[in-house]
Amino acid sequence: MSDGSKLTVSPLAPAAFPALPEVGGVRVATGNSATRYKGRDDLLVALMAKGTTVAGRFTLSQMPSAPVDWCKDIIGRGKAAALVVNAGNANAFTGKVGAQAVCDTANALAVPARQIFIASTGVIGEPLNGVKIGAKAAELALKAKSGGWEKAANAIRTTDTFAKGASATCEIDGKPVTIAGIAKGSGMIEPALGTMLSFIWTDAALPADVLDKLIGPLVDASYNAITVDSDTSTSDTLLVFATGAAKTAKVERAGDPKLKAFKTALGAVMQDLALQIVRDGEGAQKLISVEVTGAKSKKSAMKIAKAIANSPLVKTAVAGEDPNWGRIVMAVGKAGEPANRDKLSIDIGGIKVARKGLVVPGYDEAPVAQHMKGRSIEFTVDVGIGKGEATAYTCDLTHGYISINADYRS
Amino acid sequence: MSDGSKLTVSPLAPAAFPALPEVGGVRVATGNSATRYKGRDDLLVALMAKGTTVAGRFTLSQMPSAPVDWCKDIIGRGKAAALVVNAGNANAFTGKVGAQAVCDTANALAVPARQIFIASTGVIGEPLNGVKIGAKAAELALKAKSGGWEKAANAIRTTDTFAKGASATCEIDGKPVTIAGIAKGSGMIEPALGTMLSFIWTDAALPADVLDKLIGPLVDASYNAITVDSDTSTSDTLLVFATGAAKTAKVERAGDPKLKAFKTALGAVMQDLALQIVRDGEGAQKLISVEVTGAKSKKSAMKIAKAIANSPLVKTAVAGEDPNWGRIVMAVGKAGEPANRDKLSIDIGGIKVARKGLVVPGYDEAPVAQHMKGRSIEFTVDVGIGKGEATAYTCDLTHGYISINADYRS
Repeated sequence: MSDGSKLTVSPLAPAAFPALPEVGGVRVATGNSATRYKGRDDLLVALMAKGTTVAGRFTLSQMPSAPVDWCKDIIGRGKAAALVVNAGNANAFTGKVGAQAVCDTANALAVPARQIFIASTGVIGEPLNGVKIGAKAAELALKAKSGGWEKAANAIRTTDTFAKGASATCEIDGKPVTIAGIAKGSGMIEPALGTMLSFIWTDAALPADVLDKLIGPLVDASYNAITVDSDTSTSDTLLVFATGAAKTAKVERAGDPKLKAFKTALGAVMQDLALQIVRDGEGAQKLISVEVTGAKSKKSAMKIAKAIANSPLVKTAVAGEDPNWGRIVMAVGKAGEPANRDKLSIDIGGIKVARKGLVVPGYDEAPVAQHMKGRSIEFTVDVGIGKGEATAYTCDLTHGYISINADYRS
Repeated sequence: MSDGSKLTVSPLAPAAFPALPEVGGVRVATGNSATRYKGRDDLLVALMAKGTTVAGRFTLSQMPSAPVDWCKDIIGRGKAAALVVNAGNANAFTGKVGAQAVCDTANALAVPARQIFIASTGVIGEPLNGVKIGAKAAELALKAKSGGWEKAANAIRTTDTFAKGASATCEIDGKPVTIAGIAKGSGMIEPALGTMLSFIWTDAALPADVLDKLIGPLVDASYNAITVDSDTSTSDTLLVFATGAAKTAKVERAGDPKLKAFKTALGAVMQDLALQIVRDGEGAQKLISVEVTGAKSKKSAMKIAKAIANSPLVKTAVAGEDPNWGRIVMAVGKAGEPANRDKLSIDIGGIKVARKGLVVPGYDEAPVAQHMKGRSIEFTVDVGIGKGEATAYTCDLTHGYISINADYRS
């Protein structure tokens, strides 16, 4: 949770920031807010065309930040004119001062305040100067232009070691549609209906309620399926904006067959961004996927997958490249969900390790140990109860995590 | 979760193993079982006088070890003649072979098999040779004698860096009573109604059902209040034996006023042993107590305390001696329990840090930073909702934890 300045890029990072397409109806600008970070952009302003709709998800934390309070308050109307994001100060646990700072920022722009979405990330408990942020945001708004996604993704980083972006194109009823999104997050990551911060834009024309219904299941399979350290942020925010610039056909239901390709494309962007957050997990050396099958329900499967993905003993075993499947058994056991010990099956990297509650006859550890040396580790667990399935994603727990979080002030 | 041979003694360890009194009606012996460890005792046999009663608590894991299955099966009768404990192999996730190993061990001694309690700790998923353990246990039983608690505590260690024991004396209706107990545990510690392994003996005369009712609330305040790494073992076992050798007055209810001093003494022994486990938390450099007040209920308070105690970001902040109270706010928020952000109060080391959802006016970090440099760290959090209170205990998360768990095979 430091400013990331001393951190080397995660070995799991993509080779380069992806080439993201412009999205009609969105202009962005970035700059330095002179609040905490020096020598880098830490403020993002995005302006959206008139008629842009929005849907989102926010942290389930009982201690939400002031900007989260603000966004939850205004999102019901489904209209968005601008987005302002600052990095370095989360404006969380800041009481009335924090709420005022959000208002000050929103009032500084030349668009209706209650159509301005605000997100903040960084240190908790320090007052944020909303007037200063607002003034700089207003200045940036005058320079906003299409594209510039990489700068936007860089401006919202804190401990992130790389900028995160993803995009997709598809058609809605024959009209081409573009989706582009950015995200940040590295520690304090076990999103509960949101993520550290993630913003997605599309030029599709979609009523806010349709957008809202569309993202529910997609969020469960992406942001809500990842964990770095089991810690849920005060600031998790996901916002999806639809500008309508592509002039797509009118749809009134999330279940409209016209939206099938769009739903797939949007889900892919969300999954990509969520996995990039895991790939940038503090100290991460390996990406771990945990697939659980045979559970009582989908929800139960995800609870078991998360118990495995959050177990410090499982995560340190992966760090040590130790095919220590006994720790997976332990984690299944502690999940508190129905599981049949005597039917439990475990595969690592597609290799059978345990069947029916016992190590397989003639188990050869060598190929499993070889899989553990890779960057991408796959656990598959069948708990032998029902048909519920879910997959969670996490990273290993290394000395790097300790160094980052014990040596810097977040 | 290694054999501990390369580990240095925890800086939080007591200066020496305490002088534990003999307990009438109990004889113990230790030896090497030639199953995994070399050059050290790894097998404990305790023989209890006829008429000894027993009560216990076991892991809530859905993947309990074979010895846990066995003990849960026989404890309902409330009678105990012997205890056999081996270290190095947990006999967990071993299917029918594991169940047979337990029977083989129980059948080897010259006392009724279903009055023999068995516990195993160590690696998960490897078959244990119960015949071998039984034969050695039978040999040791012939040499069992009073006292010898330190050897007993040493024989059940795995990654423990020191042997753990505690005792107390009191009176029941004028008769002097002795209580002595041992424990082991260092990693895979978030007991759920038990602990890694803990055994307590008293010479009081108590019906098994009275003993059982007595220990319930005491377990909640001790073993169930500690966590090292949020990982719950397959093998957690607490057994309390009452030999009756002190010929104390007959009691029929746990609420009998005659037991008041005994309950206090037994609770103190449990608390002492539980805290010794935290003091030996893998890689621990600091002992952390988390007191939560103002919660909706006692249960809710403990959930919030555990959310703080299990947060990797809180634990690494303590490791880094960083008075990062924002991470405490985060952890309260993620607990999912009722809490009022705008009434939240935080004290660190008895120093006021936050009141009513804001840092205190003129907050001076210097004395708080000084407290963070000590070995014993105290967090007090009032969540401003009700009257529920609870205290959890944990240790910091250090490079030592990573080294122990990423470098050795458990």
